[in-house]
Amino acid sequence: MIDYMGDDAAVVQAARVSYGRGTKHVSEDRGLINYLLRHSHTTPFEMAEIKFHVKLPIFVARQWIRHRMASVNEYSARYSVLDREFYIPNTANLAAQSSTNRQGRGDVLTDSEASDVLALLRNDATRAYDDYLVMLNEDEHGNTIDAARVGLARELARMNLSLNFYTQWYWKVDLHNLMNFLRLRADPHAQYEIRAYAEVMLDVLRHWAPLTFDAFKEHRLGAIQLSASAVKVVRALIAGEQPSFETSGLSKREWAELVDQLGIKD
Amino acid sequence: MIDYMGDDAAVVQAARVSYGRGTKHVSEDRGLINYLLRHSHTTPFEMAEIKFHVKLPIFVARQWIRHRMASVNEYSARYSVLDREFYIPNTANLAAQSSTNRQGRGDVLTDSEASDVLALLRNDATRAYDDYLVMLNEDEHGNTIDAARVGLARELARMNLSLNFYTQWYWKVDLHNLMNFLRLRADPHAQYEIRAYAEVMLDVLRHWAPLTFDAFKEHRLGAIQLSASAVKVVRALIAGEQPSFETSGLSKREWAELVDQLGIKD
Amino acid sequence: MIDYMGDDAAVVQAARVSYGRGTKHVSEDRGLINYLLRHSHTTPFEMAEIKFHVKLPIFVARQWIRHRMASVNEYSARYSVLDREFYIPNTANLAAQSSTNRQGRGDVLTDSEASDVLALLRNDATRAYDDYLVMLNEDEHGNTIDAARVGLARELARMNLSLNFYTQWYWKVDLHNLMNFLRLRADPHAQYEIRAYAEVMLDVLRHWAPLTFDAFKEHRLGAIQLSASAVKVVRALIAGEQPSFETSGLSKREWAELVDQLGIKD
Amino acid sequence: MIDYMGDDAAVVQAARVSYGRGTKHVSEDRGLINYLLRHSHTTPFEMAEIKFHVKLPIFVARQWIRHRMASVNEYSARYSVLDREFYIPNTANLAAQSSTNRQGRGDVLTDSEASDVLALLRNDATRAYDDYLVMLNEDEHGNTIDAARVGLARELARMNLSLNFYTQWYWKVDLHNLMNFLRLRADPHAQYEIRAYAEVMLDVLRHWAPLTFDAFKEHRLGAIQLSASAVKVVRALIAGEQPSFETSGLSKREWAELVDQLGIKD
Repeated sequence: MIDYMGDDAAVVQAARVSYGRGTKHVSEDRGLINYLLRHSHTTPFEMAEIKFHVKLPIFVARQWIRHRMASVNEYSARYSVLDREFYIPNTANLAAQSSTNRQGRGDVLTDSEASDVLALLRNDATRAYDDYLVMLNEDEHGNTIDAARVGLARELARMNLSLNFYTQWYWKVDLHNLMNFLRLRADPHAQYEIRAYAEVMLDVLRHWAPLTFDAFKEHRLGAIQLSASAVKVVRALIAGEQPSFETSGLSKREWAELVDQLGIKD
Repeated sequence: MIDYMGDDAAVVQAARVSYGRGTKHVSEDRGLINYLLRHSHTTPFEMAEIKFHVKLPIFVARQWIRHRMASVNEYSARYSVLDREFYIPNTANLAAQSSTNRQGRGDVLTDSEASDVLALLRNDATRAYDDYLVMLNEDEHGNTIDAARVGLARELARMNLSLNFYTQWYWKVDLHNLMNFLRLRADPHAQYEIRAYAEVMLDVLRHWAPLTFDAFKEHRLGAIQLSASAVKVVRALIAGEQPSFETSGLSKREWAELVDQLGIKD
Repeated sequence: MIDYMGDDAAVVQAARVSYGRGTKHVSEDRGLINYLLRHSHTTPFEMAEIKFHVKLPIFVARQWIRHRMASVNEYSARYSVLDREFYIPNTANLAAQSSTNRQGRGDVLTDSEASDVLALLRNDATRAYDDYLVMLNEDEHGNTIDAARVGLARELARMNLSLNFYTQWYWKVDLHNLMNFLRLRADPHAQYEIRAYAEVMLDVLRHWAPLTFDAFKEHRLGAIQLSASAVKVVRALIAGEQPSFETSGLSKREWAELVDQLGIKD
Repeated sequence: MIDYMGDDAAVVQAARVSYGRGTKHVSEDRGLINYLLRHSHTTPFEMAEIKFHVKLPIFVARQWIRHRMASVNEYSARYSVLDREFYIPNTANLAAQSSTNRQGRGDVLTDSEASDVLALLRNDATRAYDDYLVMLNEDEHGNTIDAARVGLARELARMNLSLNFYTQWYWKVDLHNLMNFLRLRADPHAQYEIRAYAEVMLDVLRHWAPLTFDAFKEHRLGAIQLSASAVKVVRALIAGEQPSFETSGLSKREWAELVDQLGIKD
């Protein structure tokens, strides 16, 4: 974290200008912040801003950049040479393709499978970087390798690097859009490699804006959404009836999620 | 509605490029659109676009314009003279200030109270417009009133008009942001005068992108959000326990809403 | 000005991460900031942020809000009662409609014309506010006028107010978008009433980020754009030729502007 | 090009609503579009929209995605396996690093240097893809290679691919933001590999919205910006004086560009 502007107090200050004289009716900051988030009155959360300096693998950067409501300045590999730094997962994070979720992970690989994968990743990234330098005609200290030869343009040579190489950027975002980012990227369905960043940023949020952090856990991270059909199922359950999947109007997957989320005896 | 680009099919087409070869696993359009909206995979909904021509009172325009992710071209009262057209509510919509909701309406006024209000609104708007023309030195047909006098600049004279005068604009928005607009503005808490527009637009949506419309009703309009604490209450209820407000961790207002939404016997 | 994050240094810091090791070649802050603005490398300017608390007439707010890349929290007249405060121009700013520019001002009104206009503006705004209170059934101190009557909902009563009534908001923007705002609103073609705000904000910019302020004057405020055809005219002039309007390919208005901007003897 | 909404006519239609009754004064479409672009009245250009389906190398996609005011749906390598398709430059495009411009290209490589580079690029990409399949435990037809082994999750295996592999997406943008994209990416300073796309899109623009295309060439692509100091130099030149670099207040680079752009005898 490099810098920030405002915190919980800036949210409260902005909300109170909206309410004007009516403010006295919402007297407590924690209550106000909870109220705002619960009712998706999100503009006051735009009034606080935070800036991070992040080093991250390019494949993570490609997911991250999809959050458009933020400002970014990234290291330019057109302009400068990238370092020999690439991401190699821990063995514990080397998981098989999930058989049930097309974009998820399943069981962790066996030690022998894992070491095969790690060797491939390491060898290929090493070779990619070595050849990157050869094309640039430059060694790791920026010295020309062969004075009789010209180096390939940096903007071209970089295409030989793989997606696990590290880039870095400044990333600035307001509190509202930070929460949008965290809701998606701190979610268990997010890829582990970006979730690891989201978890560190969640911790920053906890220290920076503790009331907002609590409200975020209550109304976003720990909240669930019930579709119109799911509402009917829950009302029936609460009324003591036994609604069935067949008449619920839910898809199989929704039904399974609902059963799981609400501890329904299926 | 002036024009549009794409419909349900554009959403499906965009989603399928993301899933690539994996598409065969999500074979049915309706199911796919439901899935996207349920999981807030909203980018494919940006791929369809719609454009409206709207005439609306300025106080409604001021709420509407807060939706920033849209394109607008508005009639310019710096450039041209506004028409003598102002909004006067129907008697049925003339309600008292709500005593429980600081930004809502309560009971409808009595006939006598209503006719007093209508007379004030009508007289003041009429006088404002008459004086607007006097300042412009222009009659309603654009003719100079008094050749010996110059007219005040239009950009100044307009400040005399009240917020119920009509303006007009073209408004263009993608399907994702249209749903954001409709979720807020077709909501019972929205001011009636903007909700009236939202309801017409909901009907346009129903004809334009019927699968998205159905999914929108199921996963947005008719859906409810349970906070982390509310989830605990619902799980307890389903398990046959009797959770109490005191131990729920909910605010009074949240508890009341939950009781109402789920038909809990309180 | 309420708060800010970063200044010239934040711009430089962000630009340098892009240039990476190459940074040494752009060693001086002033030169770097000039370079960035001259080449429209505007993303580093997004890294500094500023927040204002503004009280402004509604017709100015309506122009201002068109700048979408900013965050706003406005006083809500649905929620609270507006004050009896409305904008009345100085006599010196009461100008006639321009006869050459449909959205501009011409000569200042005569004293007698001006006092007629001011009387109309003042009377109509006063009456509008008086009737606003009558509809609300509330006096200026928030006391009920007539206990036997209910007050009209605030969200309705406000429509009686005219566009010169004051509202207020917090407005937060990054340095790049602040410059976009100032380029349009500090321009002589901007309406005086918004330009007055822009000029104060220019002065804030001068103190806050002086290098950016200087670059902004050099490359935005004081800069001119030559169209492809205008470039040909200027090249011919510099080569000692006498290009004519007829062969220039410029419109009359463009030609006149060029003559004026470059001191061409026409 | 997949779809579009509106064209020059939509721009004109939106501009005319702003001008209202005043429209008759701007009677010709071509003149109006030129006027709008010359004065940066860009909102009417947001009223036309276009959608492309693009296949592009990942390093190009990384530049392209920086244009935030657009909608994107990209092929997901978390979800599906990427094809064996990677970008290999033509020999004619294999240039050395520029010695004067840190982010540009200099002379084309010799044949022998070029063939060395091409061999490295081809071999490394081939090996990266082969090992990608090994990690996935899948051959090019999607068949399992070794039934006794599980495949690594797709979201992990993809990190072994290099930045010249192709991805694909739908990209939707309005006409205003398309011009912003083209101004930067059809510029000679843009990297050749993205400029190649921009040039195709320029040609689409020429057919789709010919009046806007002409105005874009006149007021953007072929236009130049003169800084406040450059304006003084040009005024002096036109007045027959001999301004010098030393007293111009311009940087060396600005002076050199000005000399070049305006054919000044230096």
